[in-house]
Amino acid sequence: MFKITELENGLANVEGFYCGATNVGLRPNAQQGDVAFIRSELPCDIAAVFTSNTFQAAPIKHFQKYGKDFQTNFVLMNAKNANAMTGTQGVEDIETILCALSKKVDTLNPVMSSTGVIGYRLPVEKIASAFETLDFYTKNSDEAARAIMTTDSFKKELAYRVTLEDGTSFNLAAICKGAGMINPAMATMLCFIVTDADIPKTDMDALLLSSTEHSFNRISVDGDTSTNDTVMLLANKQSGVYHKKAFQETLNNMMFELAMMILRDGEGANKLVAFEVKGAKTLEDAQKASMALSNSLLVKTALFGEDPNWGRIASTIGASGIACDEKTLTIHYDDLLIYSDTHRELDKTREEKAYAIMQQDYFKVTCHIGLGDASYTSYGCDLSYEYVKINAEYRT
Amino acid sequence: MFKITELENGLANVEGFYCGATNVGLRPNAQQGDVAFIRSELPCDIAAVFTSNTFQAAPIKHFQKYGKDFQTNFVLMNAKNANAMTGTQGVEDIETILCALSKKVDTLNPVMSSTGVIGYRLPVEKIASAFETLDFYTKNSDEAARAIMTTDSFKKELAYRVTLEDGTSFNLAAICKGAGMINPAMATMLCFIVTDADIPKTDMDALLLSSTEHSFNRISVDGDTSTNDTVMLLANKQSGVYHKKAFQETLNNMMFELAMMILRDGEGANKLVAFEVKGAKTLEDAQKASMALSNSLLVKTALFGEDPNWGRIASTIGASGIACDEKTLTIHYDDLLIYSDTHRELDKTREEKAYAIMQQDYFKVTCHIGLGDASYTSYGCDLSYEYVKINAEYRT
Repeated sequence: MFKITELENGLANVEGFYCGATNVGLRPNAQQGDVAFIRSELPCDIAAVFTSNTFQAAPIKHFQKYGKDFQTNFVLMNAKNANAMTGTQGVEDIETILCALSKKVDTLNPVMSSTGVIGYRLPVEKIASAFETLDFYTKNSDEAARAIMTTDSFKKELAYRVTLEDGTSFNLAAICKGAGMINPAMATMLCFIVTDADIPKTDMDALLLSSTEHSFNRISVDGDTSTNDTVMLLANKQSGVYHKKAFQETLNNMMFELAMMILRDGEGANKLVAFEVKGAKTLEDAQKASMALSNSLLVKTALFGEDPNWGRIASTIGASGIACDEKTLTIHYDDLLIYSDTHRELDKTREEKAYAIMQQDYFKVTCHIGLGDASYTSYGCDLSYEYVKINAEYRT
Repeated sequence: MFKITELENGLANVEGFYCGATNVGLRPNAQQGDVAFIRSELPCDIAAVFTSNTFQAAPIKHFQKYGKDFQTNFVLMNAKNANAMTGTQGVEDIETILCALSKKVDTLNPVMSSTGVIGYRLPVEKIASAFETLDFYTKNSDEAARAIMTTDSFKKELAYRVTLEDGTSFNLAAICKGAGMINPAMATMLCFIVTDADIPKTDMDALLLSSTEHSFNRISVDGDTSTNDTVMLLANKQSGVYHKKAFQETLNNMMFELAMMILRDGEGANKLVAFEVKGAKTLEDAQKASMALSNSLLVKTALFGEDPNWGRIASTIGASGIACDEKTLTIHYDDLLIYSDTHRELDKTREEKAYAIMQQDYFKVTCHIGLGDASYTSYGCDLSYEYVKINAEYRT
């Protein structure tokens, strides 16, 4: 058995890692950083999952130039500019910046990660000017987490210590950003996870993929998939301790929690809703229907209006193209039966109960298709005036 | 050759058709009808296209009970209640209503069409009470067109006379409704087209399908597909005149115009945008990318914000999963080059020009993929605060 303890101060808990941020004028508020770093004393193995968007941003192309298995000791991050759709110039700009970095601190295959507006070259000199002020020996996880925020309204940072039966332990910590352009199939998000666990590289790759599938690939704010999405796991092995099951469970928890944080911070979102589709003929059907629900504008606006209008839920399932039948379908909001073949019109009592459930910050919509035993859950949020405001005014 | 003339007064122009509406209390405003009819003196051939939603509403199931080829002389319509997800009871209710109708007027295989909220039984007696007040010999197309409106802000009605070289002529007219739940693959819309052209049934089926593909299947307000979508074409052949090419061109024009009316009336929409994707490897790719653009929330909110943020256009194409390459891609707003491999960052002049284009009520986004010669155009609109308001408050 093992024990998982949540810790404060994020990345600072993991042995051998340094992190921090500074402001070089990319964002107007000088109190908040816009260039951040994570540095490891020892070379780290690295596992990463990137966006499925064909137009991968320059930092991803640059990362891939290192080949399949490489070690790194440095991640440089910036906000306000995504360095996406910038062509070969975008990759060259990264090389220029990282070359300047190598003159200030010892780097091994440094990687970069960017978020912000698409289609503009990085301000190379401004970003390189960060290296004059950054303290590469600080452990300021809070600053780093805040520096990568874009439309996020709160920073996303988690740390866990895993203590094994024999008293030995390892740590796992992450910072993450994301609030809009969030889609199942990865979000406009960056997530950096560091660990001192002595985890083999093959486990890193496999566990990161599987945890991504159960967390970031299941959330939707607006159904758009960005050019920059990145999840990275860096392991310096420094604790000398590892336990696969404990690591996996902790990583799963951490990434799921971070995904829920992104959703709670969904642009203009007020509530988080789980869409569980059960009893589907195939897993593909369950997934298709669940994602159609978390992406539907009419479902999202009904959530915002707290309107127990199950017709939009049913209509979305019918429109998703999966095998379904209105006779076998049932819909629950939490434990309340809201639709079945014999319960269609909402009477006053059920309507009031449904309304009370919808007023919560979190609730669950369960749709039982009644034709098989495949199930899938995705997570969505409501769509409010605020979403439109944020996205109509973004960039200006 | 032939001449197409646009006429006023909609359905009233077509020989042998009667139409009108009354208010039976389904909608509070007694000045606007909520039950409407179209009646033909002679039996009509009928062609129809229905929603792709698996949960087809009761009126569609009832229609299909008549079999493949039948004639009808009566279409009954109601607003405010979709009679969808109402099970076998929903179809029985239609039969009860149509049986009451047959006691007041001579009907042959009458059909019904409903729009409104999902999941509630039709108020059978209220609807049947319409038959006491309706004048089945009136020709009030305006009343009928207004009776089927839901969140529509204006009525949709068109009529054309086609005059052939020898001086003979036939007429084609339509009423239509739709504003929200609009998706490529049919919209939350009803459209009733009547003609006195002497058109063979096989032409009716083929031309209606093809015109639907080039009109209602190419528009998107919110990417949701309803349970009730219906396009019907009724032909009483009474003019004795027909010319295939003339009919097809007129039907195409009419349905495209009606589709653009729906989009202009898109819930909370302020502008109409054509998304032309050219140079794609396959037609499927062109269609996928074009529809991804007209459905993307981030693109829609950027349109509302009049923000020349081409990054969201490019990102949406990359996320659509089609074959594409940032080196061969070009993006134009009307005639203005907004992105190419050599034009990425917008300079001040181009940004100002782009902004001027986006301020128009209508403009065109052309994305040339540069990998083939397939093209597809779909039509979308912006997403404003008003959309959220309408859909958060609908039903209450």
